[in-house]
Amino acid sequence: MLTVDLNSDLGESFGPWTMGHDEALMPSITSANIACGFHAGDPSVMRQTIRLAKQHGVAVGAHPGFPDLVGFGRREMSLSTSELEDLVLYQLAAMAGVAATEGVRLQHVKAHGALYNMAARDSSLARAIARAVAAFDPTLILFGLPNSALLREGKTAGLRVAAEVFADRTYEADGSLTSRRVPGSVIQDPARVVSRAVDMIATGQVTATDGRVVPLRADTICLHGDTPGAADLARQMRAALEAAGIKVAALATTL
Amino acid sequence: MLTVDLNSDLGESFGPWTMGHDEALMPSITSANIACGFHAGDPSVMRQTIRLAKQHGVAVGAHPGFPDLVGFGRREMSLSTSELEDLVLYQLAAMAGVAATEGVRLQHVKAHGALYNMAARDSSLARAIARAVAAFDPTLILFGLPNSALLREGKTAGLRVAAEVFADRTYEADGSLTSRRVPGSVIQDPARVVSRAVDMIATGQVTATDGRVVPLRADTICLHGDTPGAADLARQMRAALEAAGIKVAALATTL
Amino acid sequence: MLTVDLNSDLGESFGPWTMGHDEALMPSITSANIACGFHAGDPSVMRQTIRLAKQHGVAVGAHPGFPDLVGFGRREMSLSTSELEDLVLYQLAAMAGVAATEGVRLQHVKAHGALYNMAARDSSLARAIARAVAAFDPTLILFGLPNSALLREGKTAGLRVAAEVFADRTYEADGSLTSRRVPGSVIQDPARVVSRAVDMIATGQVTATDGRVVPLRADTICLHGDTPGAADLARQMRAALEAAGIKVAALATTL
Amino acid sequence: MLTVDLNSDLGESFGPWTMGHDEALMPSITSANIACGFHAGDPSVMRQTIRLAKQHGVAVGAHPGFPDLVGFGRREMSLSTSELEDLVLYQLAAMAGVAATEGVRLQHVKAHGALYNMAARDSSLARAIARAVAAFDPTLILFGLPNSALLREGKTAGLRVAAEVFADRTYEADGSLTSRRVPGSVIQDPARVVSRAVDMIATGQVTATDGRVVPLRADTICLHGDTPGAADLARQMRAALEAAGIKVAALATTL
Repeated sequence: MLTVDLNSDLGESFGPWTMGHDEALMPSITSANIACGFHAGDPSVMRQTIRLAKQHGVAVGAHPGFPDLVGFGRREMSLSTSELEDLVLYQLAAMAGVAATEGVRLQHVKAHGALYNMAARDSSLARAIARAVAAFDPTLILFGLPNSALLREGKTAGLRVAAEVFADRTYEADGSLTSRRVPGSVIQDPARVVSRAVDMIATGQVTATDGRVVPLRADTICLHGDTPGAADLARQMRAALEAAGIKVAALATTL
Repeated sequence: MLTVDLNSDLGESFGPWTMGHDEALMPSITSANIACGFHAGDPSVMRQTIRLAKQHGVAVGAHPGFPDLVGFGRREMSLSTSELEDLVLYQLAAMAGVAATEGVRLQHVKAHGALYNMAARDSSLARAIARAVAAFDPTLILFGLPNSALLREGKTAGLRVAAEVFADRTYEADGSLTSRRVPGSVIQDPARVVSRAVDMIATGQVTATDGRVVPLRADTICLHGDTPGAADLARQMRAALEAAGIKVAALATTL
Repeated sequence: MLTVDLNSDLGESFGPWTMGHDEALMPSITSANIACGFHAGDPSVMRQTIRLAKQHGVAVGAHPGFPDLVGFGRREMSLSTSELEDLVLYQLAAMAGVAATEGVRLQHVKAHGALYNMAARDSSLARAIARAVAAFDPTLILFGLPNSALLREGKTAGLRVAAEVFADRTYEADGSLTSRRVPGSVIQDPARVVSRAVDMIATGQVTATDGRVVPLRADTICLHGDTPGAADLARQMRAALEAAGIKVAALATTL
Repeated sequence: MLTVDLNSDLGESFGPWTMGHDEALMPSITSANIACGFHAGDPSVMRQTIRLAKQHGVAVGAHPGFPDLVGFGRREMSLSTSELEDLVLYQLAAMAGVAATEGVRLQHVKAHGALYNMAARDSSLARAIARAVAAFDPTLILFGLPNSALLREGKTAGLRVAAEVFADRTYEADGSLTSRRVPGSVIQDPARVVSRAVDMIATGQVTATDGRVVPLRADTICLHGDTPGAADLARQMRAALEAAGIKVAALATTL
């Protein structure tokens, strides 16, 4: 039976500022990537988000990012590999410990924003992340783009890895995401996003922007949580996947 | 046989800024309170300090503080008890996880600066700290002033507690520290600090500023690490304690 | 002719996080207190908010706070008076310089949150704030509670001061605000808030919780900007004040 | 008569952490680049450093950097040009306002660390900095490497610019600095650093690593302040320059 995980970036509020629709999304997703306090989140937001995930039976992952609150971890930073390894380890440890106190074991790690994108391309950064994860807990699953340096280094480090796809983004013939700057690269129509998600999982393929059909490993689909229709889209996507006979489940047991 | 722990606040460098004489102190102390990134320390400093402590066989503790780098955690902040509990848990978890990755198990927790002093007096803050520690790992030892709210709440939460004394400070007849603002309350002469340390442990008593001799539980002696003569003083104190037949050892096995 | 200023705390977004309804409020208010980056705001938010105020002909003030983003400047911190003076000066200077670059001259300074409340009671903190303001620009108007230490010290420092009232809060017989913890101290009904505002200005008095009518100097009324109905309330209050023959205008020319 | 400015990065302490030898350097330099709180410095350090510069008759400049305390502004960050412009303006405004309160007018602006190096190469970043400076105060002098994008954009924005050289670094035939990673690119011998400084100013040329003699505009020489022998080197360099008949003076009047 085909199976897929639905993940979303959550716990991105900070102090007095709220972001996202965590409560509304929880019923539809199976994995929550929770910010660890460096690009978003704070100790209280982390704890509350872990509790919320636990209530909904959603698997919890650490979502470490660059130390850049005002830039939300979306701005590239040139850290040394040892700085990066230590900073990922710190965030991972904080999240795992808060989760353990709430009776929750981490399932996975997904790097955030600019860090995720840089580590998709740069093997030395990818290795630093993989090393931090493997040293801390080798049973954790590492998320990354299909065919990315991050997944390769994760495997080399002995980790299970999960290939993440975006149903609302177009793909190039080499399996990479079309840049957001290209008009049409972000798909707005919810119905089309949902049907693309079902197709990707049912076929293991995607139609690239040049019309070619290319294979695409997809263990988990990312759902954005900060748009107005996020919760509706999540519900529809989950329903459509299940209607197509695809099991929607967290990764811990399926990978 | 009488026994005592010697502790010091370490890992208080931050980014490009160094503080303290961690390497020079390590051979003389038995417990290191390592800053967790909120009032001092950063992920790389934490990791290096843990490694250094491990090399020297020094027990490692988390040293959580207020989120106030520029004020070094020395300025009182009025946090709610739930904010405080979450923030202590976060720092504790980060330190424990980084330490575990280095093969080190935490021995203890010592609150820093203004947090330590506020929690000595305020039972609700003390309870928040004790609750965070007990929920995270009930085998951890909680440091605090003798007779403080922090030790009381630690015991109530089921934790082992360690009473901490300061050989370079004078005491009042009620067993409390004389305020730093009182002239003479901080003892500068190293020889006198060393002899006071030996007396405190050998007798279980201290002579208060009014001349009265009062009982004082002393499980661990705090050594300041940021003064020029810190390493010399530490060496002399350890030698004098051992010469007096007092065993100098970490707390994990003795409490 | 009676006249009053309507002020609101604006520019409290930070990085990716938005707060308040700045655009909707601007048409109704006459003075904007803009966060300076320590408890909220960032350089880009500050600049955009100044531009918005300028477009609407709203006077601009600096709204300095404690260096505590996660606590939004609402948590008391025990800073030394020289730390406080320097930190207020820094925020004030940053705001004034950004405003000057946009062709705007600052009208006033209003301390934020816990700093505002502490400086209402504590003369040494009030003096530190007044000293920073007077040294930077003695033509600035200092906001504060009627009869507060802040207004007294502002006057002593040679500043013009503006007494600020809250139409949605009840008052005690000594002219102080009833604590928020007392049930009923925050008035929710918009119609009642509006009529209280008109009464305060028209009579120069307020009916305290014990029924006594007490004098209350009111140069400016604070409008909260972060509640859902904030913009509606602001519109209604301005209309009601003007219908009662009260002129609504910024302070620079009226004090 | 030949003339040159001697500048140094100062005010790089932060909260409890000290850095550099500001007091010892002041008597030998003519321009101080003072950190503005984003990569180093805090409001109190800024104010004290400005006072110190004033006492010594040293010209004051703003030294804005990336918002990255732990990385000391030495790590590249990919900010948008509008984020950068706003953040430079903020730091500049804060420094200018604190200085004005101390009766000091800013002379110049020197970007710090990674920002300085990125803006040497990248015209759009250079333009953002130049735009912030020119909009805030068109009389300020902008520092940059000779032939850099930063100097070009400064001139285009109508600013006076100062070409900065490093007597302790080797140069390539195109007038650029040899990368620090190349062995021998940083000159350790103080006597050689001093004689290079005199030669650079006396001849307006430098001998590149390949032996070619190339022209090099040098309005100001940077003295590092954080090395143990910094103050001695500064004294020797100033004495040697003056002995060679070169006037050592701030830039405000000479450019």
